[in-house]
Amino acid sequence: MAAHVATRKSQLEVNMLVRDPQVCRSINEEHYNCKYFPQHKLPENVIATTDAKAALLGADFCFHAVPVQFSSSFLEEIANHVDPGLPFISLSKGLELNTLRTMSQIIPKALKNPRQPYVALSGPSFALELMNELPTAMVVASKDKKMANSVQQLMACRNLRINTSSDVTGVEIAGALKNVLAIAAGIVEGLNLGNNSMAALVSQGCSEIRWLATKMGAKSTTLTGLSGTGDIMLTCFVSLSRNRTVGVRLGSGEKLDDILSSMNQVAEGVTTAGAVIALAQKYKVKMPVLTAVARIIDNELTPTKAVFELMNLPQVEEV
Amino acid sequence: MAAHVATRKSQLEVNMLVRDPQVCRSINEEHYNCKYFPQHKLPENVIATTDAKAALLGADFCFHAVPVQFSSSFLEEIANHVDPGLPFISLSKGLELNTLRTMSQIIPKALKNPRQPYVALSGPSFALELMNELPTAMVVASKDKKMANSVQQLMACRNLRINTSSDVTGVEIAGALKNVLAIAAGIVEGLNLGNNSMAALVSQGCSEIRWLATKMGAKSTTLTGLSGTGDIMLTCFVSLSRNRTVGVRLGSGEKLDDILSSMNQVAEGVTTAGAVIALAQKYKVKMPVLTAVARIIDNELTPTKAVFELMNLPQVEEV
Repeated sequence: MAAHVATRKSQLEVNMLVRDPQVCRSINEEHYNCKYFPQHKLPENVIATTDAKAALLGADFCFHAVPVQFSSSFLEEIANHVDPGLPFISLSKGLELNTLRTMSQIIPKALKNPRQPYVALSGPSFALELMNELPTAMVVASKDKKMANSVQQLMACRNLRINTSSDVTGVEIAGALKNVLAIAAGIVEGLNLGNNSMAALVSQGCSEIRWLATKMGAKSTTLTGLSGTGDIMLTCFVSLSRNRTVGVRLGSGEKLDDILSSMNQVAEGVTTAGAVIALAQKYKVKMPVLTAVARIIDNELTPTKAVFELMNLPQVEEV
Repeated sequence: MAAHVATRKSQLEVNMLVRDPQVCRSINEEHYNCKYFPQHKLPENVIATTDAKAALLGADFCFHAVPVQFSSSFLEEIANHVDPGLPFISLSKGLELNTLRTMSQIIPKALKNPRQPYVALSGPSFALELMNELPTAMVVASKDKKMANSVQQLMACRNLRINTSSDVTGVEIAGALKNVLAIAAGIVEGLNLGNNSMAALVSQGCSEIRWLATKMGAKSTTLTGLSGTGDIMLTCFVSLSRNRTVGVRLGSGEKLDDILSSMNQVAEGVTTAGAVIALAQKYKVKMPVLTAVARIIDNELTPTKAVFELMNLPQVEEV
């Protein structure tokens, strides 16, 4: 995202805060991110640093992409360098384990500033396609309409459409639970259940996420839009995501511990699954597909047994 | 479908009305449909005939799978052999060109019997996967709730879930316009626009279909369910359908006439596209994606120009 904005506005200086000194050097000296996108040249106005204070000094916007479970501790550490008026544009998606908080709650709490401007950025967007300037459409959601509009203006361009929204809850819940549904989609693929099953599963999953989100105050149209159905389809039908990979391997019979220990990046859906059962109970919503994923992750159910249970639910009338 | 029911209930005699005498012979003598599923053995209680009267005699249910544009003339010819109480279960999806009628209107009109029992069957279901007994979920919609329930009982089994619905309009409009959206999805693939574009296009298309259908009296939840989003995802993301193939070839720069003359089966979406502009005007719904497909089919717009126009629509607020 930072690279996208840097390309679009070459007069801006875009600071990228990274942890790995080697990544930092490769960006500044060769204009490549040697770890994640080794083949994609970054614009020269992207400058990497490992120093949070330097990265944040004089910033007009901050794109936040730290995984949800590590965000609180990360933000608490850098809180002193954050201007209270600096808008945070969050790309991170998930629910904090135990607290069930989303990023719009995590950021102001960790920064001890309930008024820290906040924008959720979401929608079907593989980074590599964005970098290759393929047409993409996303959503920015903020309770502050002006703020959403300024992020729209910052980012929208020839190959990127940006819708604005005031429904932060809808965008965040869709983004978080999408990762759990992606595990389910992977399981269906790992079990070789075919495309009919996949489509039935994903549409049921979309409904479950919509039922929960609207009970939490979201608008139904957010869930059927780009950041809901749009992002869910991309994640579930196209095989690139880490969450989906976890599912495929679970469906093929591997143990969760073996899968996780072999991955070098976080699969956010695995931790978010832990929150699903609590949310379903709290908001009194029936979510057979998403709770089945949670039970598989908790080793209470095998993938095959889950499919059998779902197929044997009573035949229903659509409402 | 007939084969599915025959497999499930081996005591039933399932008559299959076919046009091609060679197909008829291959089914009766070798229990294979030599034209469409040459590798799939049919159960022995499926009996083919080219004689409509014989096929319809004493039938309890009739599965109707004649393409929409040929249904009126076909039904008018066989009307004399149809019992006025025989339930028609329609698998055909589309709108009759010029009249804009769906199957629930075409069937009683052609049979000159406004009370002919009618059930629409829809949902994400590749026939080959159903025949291979992979888990599948579908919807049967009828204004007569008892009739929907009896079709549910006729068909539901271990590997097939059947939801019932009273929303015939929603199921039929989704099924018809899905084929137009599938052409759009094919175009995006033919132009190599990537997965971000595909997801954005399909979610926008789902919304356009929902806007139209709800104005026509459908329930929103039908459009977000199995026969709406579920079937649309399958058709748009998985490359098997004729409509999608038409789109891929249009996106690759082929002319429509050349594409159609090289295909031996009907691509229903091409004719249904002709109805989209009329429906959008009649119901005052903005449908930029679906009308763009109609204009491409009518040779008023090139695929590349359509993408440019869609990307350059004003950036919007989600509602």
